[in-house]
Amino acid sequence: MTTQKLVSEIKRKGSFLCIGLDTDISKIPSHLLQAQDPVFEFNKAIIDATHHLCVAYKPNIAFYEANGSKGWDSLQKTVRYLREQYPEIFTIADAKRGDIGNTSKMYAKAFFQDLGFDSVTVAPYMGKDSIEPFLTFNDKHTILLALTSNEGAFDFQTRLVDGKEVYKTVIEVSKGWQNSQNLMYVVGATKAEYLMEIRKIIPNNFLLVPGVGAQGGSLEEVCKYGLTEDCGLLINSSRGIIYASSDTDFARAASIKAQELQTKMAILLHDN
Amino acid sequence: MTTQKLVSEIKRKGSFLCIGLDTDISKIPSHLLQAQDPVFEFNKAIIDATHHLCVAYKPNIAFYEANGSKGWDSLQKTVRYLREQYPEIFTIADAKRGDIGNTSKMYAKAFFQDLGFDSVTVAPYMGKDSIEPFLTFNDKHTILLALTSNEGAFDFQTRLVDGKEVYKTVIEVSKGWQNSQNLMYVVGATKAEYLMEIRKIIPNNFLLVPGVGAQGGSLEEVCKYGLTEDCGLLINSSRGIIYASSDTDFARAASIKAQELQTKMAILLHDN
Repeated sequence: MTTQKLVSEIKRKGSFLCIGLDTDISKIPSHLLQAQDPVFEFNKAIIDATHHLCVAYKPNIAFYEANGSKGWDSLQKTVRYLREQYPEIFTIADAKRGDIGNTSKMYAKAFFQDLGFDSVTVAPYMGKDSIEPFLTFNDKHTILLALTSNEGAFDFQTRLVDGKEVYKTVIEVSKGWQNSQNLMYVVGATKAEYLMEIRKIIPNNFLLVPGVGAQGGSLEEVCKYGLTEDCGLLINSSRGIIYASSDTDFARAASIKAQELQTKMAILLHDN
Repeated sequence: MTTQKLVSEIKRKGSFLCIGLDTDISKIPSHLLQAQDPVFEFNKAIIDATHHLCVAYKPNIAFYEANGSKGWDSLQKTVRYLREQYPEIFTIADAKRGDIGNTSKMYAKAFFQDLGFDSVTVAPYMGKDSIEPFLTFNDKHTILLALTSNEGAFDFQTRLVDGKEVYKTVIEVSKGWQNSQNLMYVVGATKAEYLMEIRKIIPNNFLLVPGVGAQGGSLEEVCKYGLTEDCGLLINSSRGIIYASSDTDFARAASIKAQELQTKMAILLHDN
């Protein structure tokens, strides 16, 4: 999907919500466990109930790998369902991959070609040749970890390298990589005050912002510093939406939570 | 597997070789393509021909994910085959994972519990709470990226943080994490001269050393600076061994290449 198409969907729906499909088989409503593929049935119900309120879905790959090859099947079915039923939705494989070039090529093939995701999250530690294989794909987006939402972000990401924080160095260096126009960045909502500085380095790139909801980040704070003319933000919520109820009404409960966020987002976009 | 068991296997076999099972379906001998699971058949033949010459196998997960759920099956069959036929072998999931704690737990479950690997490689960018969930498993080993073998290592890993390189900071900080006795570290063979400095920080921890062979690192240089009393090294070679021949004699060709390395290793261990 092109960035233009994503932006037009955001404007059409009045939403920049991304719903995290971190589907844990031990947490889904028990009545689904009789289905042949409970994880897919759960995802399908969540998607059908919320697709008009969000612009993106983000399965975190760990939750699928934890179920082995069955999990991989659930993942594949989920992405295929999205592409067939709701092709206007932007899909994100939250994988945080990164390896030597030869190997990153295989990951890029897995997520972009075989599974058909629009984007994948990657980790910067191994540098340029670990990321460039992802960037060669047209109309695919590579979302680089910059400043993450967790406490451990302060272990290395905020340390000073030549007087500048590691995460800023990562963003600046990445701008020089081939096809860097295909980069987006992960910036945690729990660190909204850092967004002003980040927007000085990348005024226009899209940011994927986890950490609103269960992790405690504020939507308003993120928008205050992060919104651009083209929105430039995808705000993710996972647990707060998909586990809003653990009963048979889980999909409706999820849509209510998504609607709350979408309503706020429509106002923030309107006032922007 | 305990570290003591690994050390005793190294001494018994006169080898600290790890063979990388980076099995690419487009590169395996064509006569195998008729098999029901060509990747597993290839791995099985390589393992049967080389298990007495090495102490560890390291499938790189990217090569399996590129084949979807079939690939995950091949991976599962490979690890199961190793555990059943050669339980003395140390298994490494080269996955380079790392996510917020809640998610890293799922990855740890996938690799340690479900697949039954002895160890997994992880990336440090997200800090303490992204790694500690892996460290809680008894007799399982978490192999942290420190200084990687690729060119991109110089993008961030060797930059100075408060006068000290990022990779050294990563190693030092990680020593303070809970259950840090379960840590090993990745240090590329292409950067052997750095090992002297690294051994000052972690005199005893095992290092997983990729980059000998196709990437140009020197076995002798690595040993000169990296060997400890208990060996302390696992030297990986992937392409140089598994693709030594692309014909029906591929397993025998692999064993010849592995034997060459093992012979050198036996001498280096003896002289240590």
